[in-house]
Amino acid sequence: MTVTTEAPSIFSTRESQVRSYSEQWPAVFDTAQGSWITDEGGRRYLDFFAGAGALNYGHNNPVLKSALVDYIMRDGITHGLDMSTVAKREFLEIFEKNILTPRGLDYKVQFPGPTGTNTVEAALKLARKVTGRESIINFTNAFHGMTLGALSVTGNSMKRAGAGIPLVHATPMPFDNYFGGATDDFQWMERVLDDSGSGMNRPAAVIVETVQGEGGVNVARVEWLKALAELCSSRGILLIVDDVQMGCGRTGPFFSFEVAGITPDIVTLSKSIGGYGMPMALTLFKPELDVWGSGEHNGTFRGNNPAFVTSAAAIDHYWSDDSFEKATLAKGERIHDSFIDLSTRFDGVSARGRGMVQGLVFADSEKAGKVASLAYENGLLAETSGPSDEVVKLLPPLTISEEDLLHGLDILADATAVVCS
Amino acid sequence: MTVTTEAPSIFSTRESQVRSYSEQWPAVFDTAQGSWITDEGGRRYLDFFAGAGALNYGHNNPVLKSALVDYIMRDGITHGLDMSTVAKREFLEIFEKNILTPRGLDYKVQFPGPTGTNTVEAALKLARKVTGRESIINFTNAFHGMTLGALSVTGNSMKRAGAGIPLVHATPMPFDNYFGGATDDFQWMERVLDDSGSGMNRPAAVIVETVQGEGGVNVARVEWLKALAELCSSRGILLIVDDVQMGCGRTGPFFSFEVAGITPDIVTLSKSIGGYGMPMALTLFKPELDVWGSGEHNGTFRGNNPAFVTSAAAIDHYWSDDSFEKATLAKGERIHDSFIDLSTRFDGVSARGRGMVQGLVFADSEKAGKVASLAYENGLLAETSGPSDEVVKLLPPLTISEEDLLHGLDILADATAVVCS
Amino acid sequence: MTVTTEAPSIFSTRESQVRSYSEQWPAVFDTAQGSWITDEGGRRYLDFFAGAGALNYGHNNPVLKSALVDYIMRDGITHGLDMSTVAKREFLEIFEKNILTPRGLDYKVQFPGPTGTNTVEAALKLARKVTGRESIINFTNAFHGMTLGALSVTGNSMKRAGAGIPLVHATPMPFDNYFGGATDDFQWMERVLDDSGSGMNRPAAVIVETVQGEGGVNVARVEWLKALAELCSSRGILLIVDDVQMGCGRTGPFFSFEVAGITPDIVTLSKSIGGYGMPMALTLFKPELDVWGSGEHNGTFRGNNPAFVTSAAAIDHYWSDDSFEKATLAKGERIHDSFIDLSTRFDGVSARGRGMVQGLVFADSEKAGKVASLAYENGLLAETSGPSDEVVKLLPPLTISEEDLLHGLDILADATAVVCS
Amino acid sequence: MTVTTEAPSIFSTRESQVRSYSEQWPAVFDTAQGSWITDEGGRRYLDFFAGAGALNYGHNNPVLKSALVDYIMRDGITHGLDMSTVAKREFLEIFEKNILTPRGLDYKVQFPGPTGTNTVEAALKLARKVTGRESIINFTNAFHGMTLGALSVTGNSMKRAGAGIPLVHATPMPFDNYFGGATDDFQWMERVLDDSGSGMNRPAAVIVETVQGEGGVNVARVEWLKALAELCSSRGILLIVDDVQMGCGRTGPFFSFEVAGITPDIVTLSKSIGGYGMPMALTLFKPELDVWGSGEHNGTFRGNNPAFVTSAAAIDHYWSDDSFEKATLAKGERIHDSFIDLSTRFDGVSARGRGMVQGLVFADSEKAGKVASLAYENGLLAETSGPSDEVVKLLPPLTISEEDLLHGLDILADATAVVCS
Repeated sequence: MTVTTEAPSIFSTRESQVRSYSEQWPAVFDTAQGSWITDEGGRRYLDFFAGAGALNYGHNNPVLKSALVDYIMRDGITHGLDMSTVAKREFLEIFEKNILTPRGLDYKVQFPGPTGTNTVEAALKLARKVTGRESIINFTNAFHGMTLGALSVTGNSMKRAGAGIPLVHATPMPFDNYFGGATDDFQWMERVLDDSGSGMNRPAAVIVETVQGEGGVNVARVEWLKALAELCSSRGILLIVDDVQMGCGRTGPFFSFEVAGITPDIVTLSKSIGGYGMPMALTLFKPELDVWGSGEHNGTFRGNNPAFVTSAAAIDHYWSDDSFEKATLAKGERIHDSFIDLSTRFDGVSARGRGMVQGLVFADSEKAGKVASLAYENGLLAETSGPSDEVVKLLPPLTISEEDLLHGLDILADATAVVCS
Repeated sequence: MTVTTEAPSIFSTRESQVRSYSEQWPAVFDTAQGSWITDEGGRRYLDFFAGAGALNYGHNNPVLKSALVDYIMRDGITHGLDMSTVAKREFLEIFEKNILTPRGLDYKVQFPGPTGTNTVEAALKLARKVTGRESIINFTNAFHGMTLGALSVTGNSMKRAGAGIPLVHATPMPFDNYFGGATDDFQWMERVLDDSGSGMNRPAAVIVETVQGEGGVNVARVEWLKALAELCSSRGILLIVDDVQMGCGRTGPFFSFEVAGITPDIVTLSKSIGGYGMPMALTLFKPELDVWGSGEHNGTFRGNNPAFVTSAAAIDHYWSDDSFEKATLAKGERIHDSFIDLSTRFDGVSARGRGMVQGLVFADSEKAGKVASLAYENGLLAETSGPSDEVVKLLPPLTISEEDLLHGLDILADATAVVCS
Repeated sequence: MTVTTEAPSIFSTRESQVRSYSEQWPAVFDTAQGSWITDEGGRRYLDFFAGAGALNYGHNNPVLKSALVDYIMRDGITHGLDMSTVAKREFLEIFEKNILTPRGLDYKVQFPGPTGTNTVEAALKLARKVTGRESIINFTNAFHGMTLGALSVTGNSMKRAGAGIPLVHATPMPFDNYFGGATDDFQWMERVLDDSGSGMNRPAAVIVETVQGEGGVNVARVEWLKALAELCSSRGILLIVDDVQMGCGRTGPFFSFEVAGITPDIVTLSKSIGGYGMPMALTLFKPELDVWGSGEHNGTFRGNNPAFVTSAAAIDHYWSDDSFEKATLAKGERIHDSFIDLSTRFDGVSARGRGMVQGLVFADSEKAGKVASLAYENGLLAETSGPSDEVVKLLPPLTISEEDLLHGLDILADATAVVCS
Repeated sequence: MTVTTEAPSIFSTRESQVRSYSEQWPAVFDTAQGSWITDEGGRRYLDFFAGAGALNYGHNNPVLKSALVDYIMRDGITHGLDMSTVAKREFLEIFEKNILTPRGLDYKVQFPGPTGTNTVEAALKLARKVTGRESIINFTNAFHGMTLGALSVTGNSMKRAGAGIPLVHATPMPFDNYFGGATDDFQWMERVLDDSGSGMNRPAAVIVETVQGEGGVNVARVEWLKALAELCSSRGILLIVDDVQMGCGRTGPFFSFEVAGITPDIVTLSKSIGGYGMPMALTLFKPELDVWGSGEHNGTFRGNNPAFVTSAAAIDHYWSDDSFEKATLAKGERIHDSFIDLSTRFDGVSARGRGMVQGLVFADSEKAGKVASLAYENGLLAETSGPSDEVVKLLPPLTISEEDLLHGLDILADATAVVCS
C-alpha cells in the first residue's frame, strides 16, 4: 500500500494564519461568472456570499466587464490619487443624476481611500472635527472595520483584542430589539444623553448599520431608525449610517436608510459601490459639514479609476429606474418565504432580514455551522455570522436568476433538514 | 466684447474640498502610458510623480496590462477576500521565488487590506499584540497614513489635527540628521529608553521609513539604519520598516532596507506592489510573530485578485535578476548629477535622495513651489514635499527611458533657472 | 446721607473663583462645637452638613479633642509618611479589633494619601494592576473625586469638563432605580458583559456607592447590591465600594455595605475615618489583592498621625459595641418620619435615604434651593445635591442631640412650608 | 538556649506591602522635636529627611505648636471645605503680605485638596482648560504624584506601571544637563515644538521642578530656567513650576524659581506650606487664568483649617524679612562644603544641590544605599533618590541648629569613609 502525502501548500507555509475564509472553504478558486464561482478542479459553487456584499452585481458582470476592458485597452488612467480625471467626472455625473438627485440628496462626495474601514475613519474624523467632540456612540454587535478608529466602534471582542491598545472614545448602546421588546427603545440612550450627571461623554456622532450583517442580520425597524434620527437631530449629534454592506441596493433601495425616510448627516459606502469587486469607497456628507482642509485626509488609492468606470457603468445600467430595486425586493421575499417555511418545519429555527440580506437563525449555534458546511459540500457558499455564529447569512448577488436562487435555497433547505431532523 | 463664464465643474460642486492634487494640477486627465499622462484636451505631461510612488513600472505597463486583460477576459476571480485562489498562489510563489528566497528572508505574508494605511495598521496591531505594549516610537516628519493608528505615528500637524481626538501612544524621535550632525545619533532615544526614570513608556515597536518621502526626501544613512536595528534588537523592541513608498525598487533594491543589511521584524508594502496602480498591500513579518487569530484582522478588499495578477507579472518580469535594480541606480545617479549641477549653479539649492527618489531642496521654500508650478506649465508633473514644502520631490517611473528622463530634468533645470536667477 | 461701601474681602480678591460653599453660605465662620458652627459675628448655625460627611462625630468632639491635644502636647510625631509609628499601630490595632474582626473582614489596610480622591485612585490602580484590564464600570450620578482617575468615574458633566482631556476607560451603567423599576435590574449591564459582540471593554472593576450622596441621595436597595456583588463575582470583576461618604456609620453600620451582607473586594474610606475632620484615608482590600510593589503608590501625607490618633479614639469610643449604630438608625428614622410628613403635606415633595443620610426631594428643583437658602437664613446649614440640585440633603453629625435634631427639622419644615405653600 | 520568636507586628500582618520607608527604617517612631525623632525604645535619630521636605520648620515647631493648640483649644473650625473662615482669611492675608506682595506676584490662590498630587492635578486641569490643549511636556526623572494626572507626568517607570493603564498626553523632554552639556539646551524641545511635521502634539503646558528631589537632586541652572520660561512664553505654552518639595524656602528663597527671576504661570505648593506637617496645598496662578467654574474642582479636605493656622504662623514668623532665606543659604553652603570635601577625598563621589537640598552622588549606586543604612545605624535619617538610588539626598529642617547640622554631617562623612575606603 502506498501513502501519498500531499506537500503543504504555499498558503499554509507562506501566508499568515490570520486568514479565515480559506479555512472554511478550502478550495482553491479560479474563475467566476455571475452567481457562480469555480475552483481549480472545475467544481462550481453557487455563491450566496458574494464577496461579503461586495458583488451585488455578480462576479465579472458582463456589462461592467466590457466597460472595464475598454477602459484598460484605451489606456485610461488607472491610478489617479485625487486628480481630476474623465473617469471620475463620469462617475460623479451619473452618481449625481441617478442616485443623489432623484432622492433629493445634496451630499458632498469624498473619495477617502478605497475600503470600508477607510470611509468609516474619514466619517469619524469629520464628525469629530465638525463637532469638536471625541466620543462616538456605536451599537451592540456593530461591525465597522479593522483600523483603529473603525475598530473602536466595532463590537466583536476577538477583533477588538487585536488592537493591542485599549479602545476608547466609543460607548455601545443597545441595537434595535436587543432586549426583545422588553424595554422601550432608546430608554437607556436617551436617558444618559439627557442626564447631565450620567457620566456619559457627549458624543460627536452616532454610527449605525440599518441591518447588521456581521452582527447576525439584525434588522433595525423603520420606526427605530426614525426615532434614532430624531434623537440625534434634536440633540445636535451627527448621524452616520454605515452603508458599506447594506448600501448599493442590498436591502432593495440604493441606500438602506431610504426605507425609513431619514437623511443621515454622513453616509459611508464601499464594497459594491465599485461594482466589479474592485476597491472603492465614498464618504458622503451634508455640504455644511465639508470643513476639511485641502489634503487633510488623503490616501494613495482613493482614485482607483477602473473602479470609477465599473461603478459608473453599474449605476447607469441598474439605477436609471426602480426596476432593480423592485426585483431585489421580490427576490428577498422569495428567500424569506423559504426561510419562514424552514422555521415552521424545524424547531429552533427562525428567520430575519431585509431585501436580499436574509438570515436563517439557529437557536443551537452549532447547527448553523453544520448547515453552512453541508451547503458547501453540496456546492453552495454561505457564511455564518452573529456573536455565536448562529446565523446562516445569505448575501446572493442581486442579479441572480430565479432559477439559481431557487437552486441555492433548495441546497440550504436540504442541509437544514439533515441537520435539524 | 463677450465674456464667457465657465460653468462650475462637477468637481467643485460635488466633490469635497478635501481634494488636493487636483488643486495643484487643474487639468482633467484621461489616459496614460509609461511615463506620460494625457489630459482631456490632448495635452501630454511627463509624470515624475508616478502616483506618489504607486507606479514604479509606469502607467499601464504593457506587460502587466496584457496579464491583466487576459485575467479579466477569462473571468478570473476579481474579488476573493482571503479565499485561496489560483491568482494568489501564483503571486505567493513568484514573490517567494524572486523576492524572499534570494534575499534569505522567511517572512510570513499577510494581506491586510489593500492600502498603505491598512498595512501600517496591521503592523502596529501585531507589534502591540506580540509585545503586550502600547507605545510606538516614530520619527520626526514621518508619514504612515490617515486612519487613526497610522495617523498617530505620522508627523504632519495639519493631518494630525484631522483626527479630532488627541493622538496618543506614539512618541516622536529625531530622524537621521535632524540636527545636522550636531548631536550623536540616538543620543536622546537611547538615553530615554535606558533611563528607568525617563517617563518614556516602553515601546512595542519603532516604525521608520528608510527615506522619508512626504517628509522631504530625508535619507537615513546606512550606518544610522544599522544602529537603529541594533538598538531595537538589543532592547526587545520590534523594528517596522514602512516600505510603502520606498519599497518595490524605488531606491534600487526591492526593499529599501537592503542597502543597510538589516532584517526588520515587520515590513509594510503597498503602492507599487500591485504593479499596475491597483490597490494592494502586504504586511510581512518574521514567522515567530505570526500570532494572529484566524480573522482577527480582516477587510473586504484584501483579496484584490487582479492586483495579484499584475503584481506577479511585474515581479516575474522585473525581479528575476538584478538588472532592474542596476538600471534604477544608474538613473538615480543621472538625476542626482543633474541636481548637483543645479545646486552648484544656484545658491540656496541642494540635493538629496537615494535611487530614484530624489529631492531638490530650496532654502527658500516658496521657490520650490514656483519651480513645481512652472514645471507643470511646461508639461512636467512633480510635487513638493517636506514640512514647508521646500523640496521638489522626484519619483519618476523606474521604467522611464533615458530620453524622457533627460527631457524631464531639462524642464526642471529650466524652471529652476527661471526661479532662481 | 452717607454711603459706606464695604471693601472687597480678601476672599474675593485673592481666592480663585473655583470656591463654591462660600458663595452659598457667605458668612465667615470661626468656631464650632458638636452640631453647631459660629461665624465671626457670633451667629450660630446648626450644621446638618457636617463637612459633607467628614464630621460624623461632630465638630471638635471633646473625646477626640482631648486625645489630639494630648498627642500634640507630648510631641507625638505629626508627619510620618509611611514610617511605622506608635500612633499608626494603635490605630491599626483598634481598627482591627473594633471594625474588621467583629465583621469577619480580613482586609489589608493601605494608607493611600489622606483624601477621598486619593483612595479612589489607589483602588482603581490596584484593580487594574491585579486584573490586567483597564476599563471600569461606574454608575450614573456617581461621585468619586476630582483627580483624573477618580474624575473619569464621576458622573457630573460640569466637573468632567474640568479635566480638559477626554475621560476614558470608564463606562457608566444605570444605578439602582434609574428607570423607576420599569426595567429589570442589570438588564443592560449583564447583557453587555455577557455578549462577546457588545463592544464593551471587559472591566477590571465596578465602583459603586451604596447611597449616592452627591448624586441626590440615591439609595441602592439591598437586593440590588447583593445582585451586583454576585454579578461581579461570577464574572471575575472586582467590586469596589466607595464608602468615603457613606462609611464610618453614616448609614448606621460602620460600613454602608453591611446591610446587604456583601464583602466588596476593595473598600475606600476617608472623610469621617479621621474623626476630627483632619485629612485621612484608607484603602482596604482582600489580602490576595495585595500585589503592590514597595512604594508603587505613595504620597507625602499618607501618614497624618494626628488623624490616626483621633481616628483611634473615635473607633474606640463609638464602635466598641452596636449602640452607636442603633442610635444612628433611630435618629435616621426620626428624620425620615419628618420628611414623610412633609411629603404628605406638600405636593411634589418626597423623601429617601438610609440611616442619617436623608434627602428631601422636590419635583421642582428650584424649590430645593429656596428651602436650603431659607434654612440658612434661619440658622441651618443644609446643602442641595442631585443632577438638578433638586434634593435637600441632610448629613447631620451622628452625635447630634435629639433636641438639636428636632430643632433643625423644624427649621427645615418651616422653610418647606413657606416655599411650598 | 532559648529562642524567642517575636510575634509578627500588626504592620506586617495588616498593612499593605506597599509601604516603603518603614522597610528601610524599621524602628517604630513615637515622638519628635525640631530635628530629632525618637522611637518607642527611646532611641533618638537626627532627621535629615524631614518628611520628604514637609517639615522645613522642623518637627512640632514650638511657635506653630502654640498657635495650633490655641486654635484647637478655642474650638476653631477644623474642617471647613471651601467655606470662608477666620483662619483662612488670616492665612490669605499673611500670605499676601509676606509672600506675594514683596515678590510682586499677583497670583490667585486655589485650595485644591491638601496634597501635592491634588495641586498638580488642579494645575494640569486648569492648564488644559485654559488652552484647550491636552498634551503636557514633563522632564526626565520628574516626580509629580501618584494620581493619574500627576502620575502621567512622573518619570519613574515602576511607579508608572502602577497605573494599570497606558499613561498618555505627556511627552518627556531632557531635564537640564541630561547629556552633561554635550548638547545645546532645548535643542530637541525647541525643534519639535517649532517643526510642524515633528509629530509632537502642541502642549498646553510644561511642568518642571527647579530641583528634582526624587529624581536625584538634579539642579536646573538659572540660565536653563530663564530659557525655559522664555521658550514657553514665546510659544504660548503655560509654565507650571511644581514647588511642592522645593518651595517654602527649601532652596533659600520662598519660591525656588526666584533665583531665576522668572514668573511661572502656575505654581504648586504643598508639603511645608502647612508648616507643621499637616496636609495642605495651594495652586497659584496668574489672575487671567482663573477660568474655573464654581465647584469645578473640589475636595473634602481643601479647607484643613488647623493647617491654615500653622501655615500663617510659620509665614509670619519666618518670612517677615530675608533672615530665614539667608540662614538657609548659609547652612546649605555648610552642607555643600562637607560634600565637596567628601568628593575630594573619595573617588566616585560628587555633590550637587541648591540651598538645603543637597545630594551626595555615588558613581556606584550600591554605595549610596550602604551609606544611608550605616547612617541610620548611627542615628541619622537620610534617604536615597535618583533613578538608581545613587544619591544620598539631604533635606534637613531649615531650622536645624549649626551643632545638629555638623553632627549629622559627621555621621554621614564617617559612613562614607567606611563605605568608600
